[in-house]
Amino acid sequence: MSTILKGIAASSGIAIGKAYRLIEPDLSFSKTAISNADDEISRLHSAVNSAKADLEVIRGKALVDLGEDKASIFDAHLLVLSDPELLTSIEDKIRMDMKNCESALKETTDMFVSMFEQMENEYMKERAADIKDVSKRVMAHLLGVKLPNPGLIAEEVVIIAEDLTPSDTAQLNKQFVKGFATDIGGRTSHSAIMARSMEIPAVVGTKSASNAIENGDIIVVDGLHGEVHINPTQEVIKKYEDELRSFEMQKLEWALLKDEATETLDGKHVELAANIGSPQDIEKVLINGAEGVGLYRTEFLYMERNQLPSEEEQFESYKTVLEKMNGKPVVVRTLDIGGDKQLPYLNLPSEMNPFLGFRAIRLCLEEHDIFRTQLRALLRASAFGNLKIMFPMIATLDEFRSAKALLLEEKEALVENGILVADDIELGIMVEIPSTAVLANQFAKEVDFFSIGTNDLIQYTMAADRMNERVSYLYQPYNPAILHLVKMVINAAHNEGKWAGMCGEMAGDEIAIPILLGLGLDEFSMSASSILKARSLIKKLSQNEMKQLAEEALGMQTANEVMDLVKNKIL
Amino acid sequence: MSTILKGIAASSGIAIGKAYRLIEPDLSFSKTAISNADDEISRLHSAVNSAKADLEVIRGKALVDLGEDKASIFDAHLLVLSDPELLTSIEDKIRMDMKNCESALKETTDMFVSMFEQMENEYMKERAADIKDVSKRVMAHLLGVKLPNPGLIAEEVVIIAEDLTPSDTAQLNKQFVKGFATDIGGRTSHSAIMARSMEIPAVVGTKSASNAIENGDIIVVDGLHGEVHINPTQEVIKKYEDELRSFEMQKLEWALLKDEATETLDGKHVELAANIGSPQDIEKVLINGAEGVGLYRTEFLYMERNQLPSEEEQFESYKTVLEKMNGKPVVVRTLDIGGDKQLPYLNLPSEMNPFLGFRAIRLCLEEHDIFRTQLRALLRASAFGNLKIMFPMIATLDEFRSAKALLLEEKEALVENGILVADDIELGIMVEIPSTAVLANQFAKEVDFFSIGTNDLIQYTMAADRMNERVSYLYQPYNPAILHLVKMVINAAHNEGKWAGMCGEMAGDEIAIPILLGLGLDEFSMSASSILKARSLIKKLSQNEMKQLAEEALGMQTANEVMDLVKNKIL
Repeated sequence: MSTILKGIAASSGIAIGKAYRLIEPDLSFSKTAISNADDEISRLHSAVNSAKADLEVIRGKALVDLGEDKASIFDAHLLVLSDPELLTSIEDKIRMDMKNCESALKETTDMFVSMFEQMENEYMKERAADIKDVSKRVMAHLLGVKLPNPGLIAEEVVIIAEDLTPSDTAQLNKQFVKGFATDIGGRTSHSAIMARSMEIPAVVGTKSASNAIENGDIIVVDGLHGEVHINPTQEVIKKYEDELRSFEMQKLEWALLKDEATETLDGKHVELAANIGSPQDIEKVLINGAEGVGLYRTEFLYMERNQLPSEEEQFESYKTVLEKMNGKPVVVRTLDIGGDKQLPYLNLPSEMNPFLGFRAIRLCLEEHDIFRTQLRALLRASAFGNLKIMFPMIATLDEFRSAKALLLEEKEALVENGILVADDIELGIMVEIPSTAVLANQFAKEVDFFSIGTNDLIQYTMAADRMNERVSYLYQPYNPAILHLVKMVINAAHNEGKWAGMCGEMAGDEIAIPILLGLGLDEFSMSASSILKARSLIKKLSQNEMKQLAEEALGMQTANEVMDLVKNKIL
Repeated sequence: MSTILKGIAASSGIAIGKAYRLIEPDLSFSKTAISNADDEISRLHSAVNSAKADLEVIRGKALVDLGEDKASIFDAHLLVLSDPELLTSIEDKIRMDMKNCESALKETTDMFVSMFEQMENEYMKERAADIKDVSKRVMAHLLGVKLPNPGLIAEEVVIIAEDLTPSDTAQLNKQFVKGFATDIGGRTSHSAIMARSMEIPAVVGTKSASNAIENGDIIVVDGLHGEVHINPTQEVIKKYEDELRSFEMQKLEWALLKDEATETLDGKHVELAANIGSPQDIEKVLINGAEGVGLYRTEFLYMERNQLPSEEEQFESYKTVLEKMNGKPVVVRTLDIGGDKQLPYLNLPSEMNPFLGFRAIRLCLEEHDIFRTQLRALLRASAFGNLKIMFPMIATLDEFRSAKALLLEEKEALVENGILVADDIELGIMVEIPSTAVLANQFAKEVDFFSIGTNDLIQYTMAADRMNERVSYLYQPYNPAILHLVKMVINAAHNEGKWAGMCGEMAGDEIAIPILLGLGLDEFSMSASSILKARSLIKKLSQNEMKQLAEEALGMQTANEVMDLVKNKIL
């Protein structure tokens, strides 16, 4: 039967393929007493050997597709399975307590896991995670249950999941993964941002995809309209195949704009820049004709590892990006950790409301060592390109002044030691907290530029957690209140001869772009994959007309009125 | 040795008294095997009897001081101690497993607790809490450890605690509790708000009071400067006794203003109203000469109970308040639950960021039954006084319109049934979300009044959880951004001929009052205990001069500059 699930269009495009459920299977078992320990132990060995065989294959594929670094994770897993202490403990439990293999495996590995987890040492904590992972794999073989192995996918599929973590997505092979659909998440959840950056069509927040879809179902992910079709009719598939083709055609047309200037009909030039998370993203930035990097999220350097990155490591990353961008501007945001992005090795206390908590610049202004290391790496890298530095989560002028003072101290020290540092590094802030938008006229006197971070600005201005589906109706980029704040920021910048950009999701949104153009935004930074489409749109607009449109939008009462206005007049 | 702890001045005044630690004692014990079960069982009986004796006394005092309602809690506790099933289970464990009394008590009660907690039935869940409480009391007697019994305090004391919950404070006898000092909390935490409402001097957020202070230490709580003195010298005590006397003198002077109009030197009248949580608070409202109730927090009707209050029960509460206020305005805020205020019996899913979550009007617009019941109770009560209704956490005009539509539906239905409903109920909103402040000019066309809720408005505008000490430096009422938002709201109201009030903590703050007066605020609603002091201040100010002061404050860059400005010019 054909069914349609509604969700949130998280990454545009259309995917057609077989469903691949990336979902934890049921590994529950019954505890039974056994009569023959030898039989049970031989069941154990056979499951362990099958698990080893899996891991060898996965390791091999990871080595080819993802490199030595990612492959080494599976070396660690193989090592666990060869650990005599672990295996002997399980065997003992089978023999002494006459427990079945599943119980013995679970009890023994649980004990090791909790032992390792309690250790202070980060390395040991990682071992706990390895043991957990491996014991799951052995358990699956004992129970005859199939574990999902995303690394082994070898046909065109659509991934179905409750949610996707960054490490899930890192394992996906883009050659075969055509799209994905998840139960939870919104337009700014990690999985959505990841999908756009991988240019994979995605629908998130369907609530029920993981329940409604079986492995092998034929799925259409309609990332344009936020729909997931389960086993659609041939007619529907045909319609989507046509749409897919015309979408591909349109992309080819957009590709022609790669080296064109982003200019409105009446000759106003704006800068289209890309948001990146690592030096690897630069390739796509260049392919899509970005005029710069408007947001380099440096926190990814700090995540999915066991300790802080060294100054040298950071320096190399920043230098690589600057060199590859070859003189084009690169805006680097200093560490923005906390909120939904945690670093387990910092052992920060958990908070009641992490989005309103001790994060980003708040943390950096207290943990000077972490911050100064990053600032030194940035200053040293500045000699290799056109670097601009930006501080996240600035709420008060005092915070900006403190952060700037630390930067100047580090700069002075480097210069004294004869190290080359660029002399013209622009220093800006993210405007993502309402207080800063409201007081932008004061900030504009002291900063070199603003970059409006709409994801957070909207969540704070509307007092609605952007990850919480129960209040997702309040995540309203087009709410006139947001437009008023954006206007205040742009005007404040221009009054002081500074520039204002935007690096939130809104900057690449086709309904927002005409208004932002009318409000005078200077720089639009977005997923690289959105740039050519945005350029195509802007080239068809007149800034003077957009000024009128923006004025009208500012006078509206609700987000829906604004959306209707743009749809009626422009799209 | 004399020590001074610094904290946050949460409730003004000075308290001098012996320390009473309201802190969970150490109830750890060692598990030992026993040789004589009868001896152990007689230890159990003796501890149970002592616990019963405690509870009888506490129950008696609660009955006198707090009424039948609160006393019945202890009936439930006494019932647990007379439950033969529980006692027999413990005795069995002692006899069969030859375990010591402490182990047997702990294991048995833990089992009962976890059994009851897993039940769906709310009544049974309550039983789990009772058993936990009672078993602690028996354990304390077994171990010879003294449990704090705040209900039994019979000398003048200063309470020392990590934090105080609403139920802790409900048990305190104001005759003897002179002040309190806590480790955690800020100016807007529950314990601080409670202290001001009880007019007890308090210092919160000392970080270490519970560690540094022993039972019986002589303590000075300086709620004016946020200091806690531990065993101060006679000289210091003398100084504080003098200060206490002059503070009492000043209060007597303020008391003379009870029936005076709140008018500035140049003849501008403003309304001073009180925030209340229940009909019991009205007495203090009248004693302190409030001109109305500016915020009736109805959520307290819903808290500390097992089920929603009935329409009838609500109607009686609202009617009582309206009648006692005798024609003076009473602004009732509809249910504001969620965030830091939970109702366990609603079984709402837990959220990552409850302050940015599904709370207040967001919940009411989905749970129509709960909301409609309250609206009916309010409408019926409107016939008995001067009622104004206000919706909390309004972020968009759509929300206001939906809430208003439900109110009108209920009104129409009541009128059709011949029930008397006032015809002139003003309908307003809390302005506590930045989007609403920014868009106040649109809201002003549709609402009858605004009441600015600064506690939340500040937390969202600064993106800083007001309960989180790590970011408490960002809770800045005097930040110029907050002043700009307040100005936008007041101007928007006046442009449409509406009035604007404020019911957050800021409305009673002596640094904020001169600025708010200058910005044109019409109504100031605060703890009843702050009203006379505020009236005294306002009568010494000229509104015209305050307009200039406000203009200057709006041009400042930081909260400290604003504070210095007011301190230099006014205080």
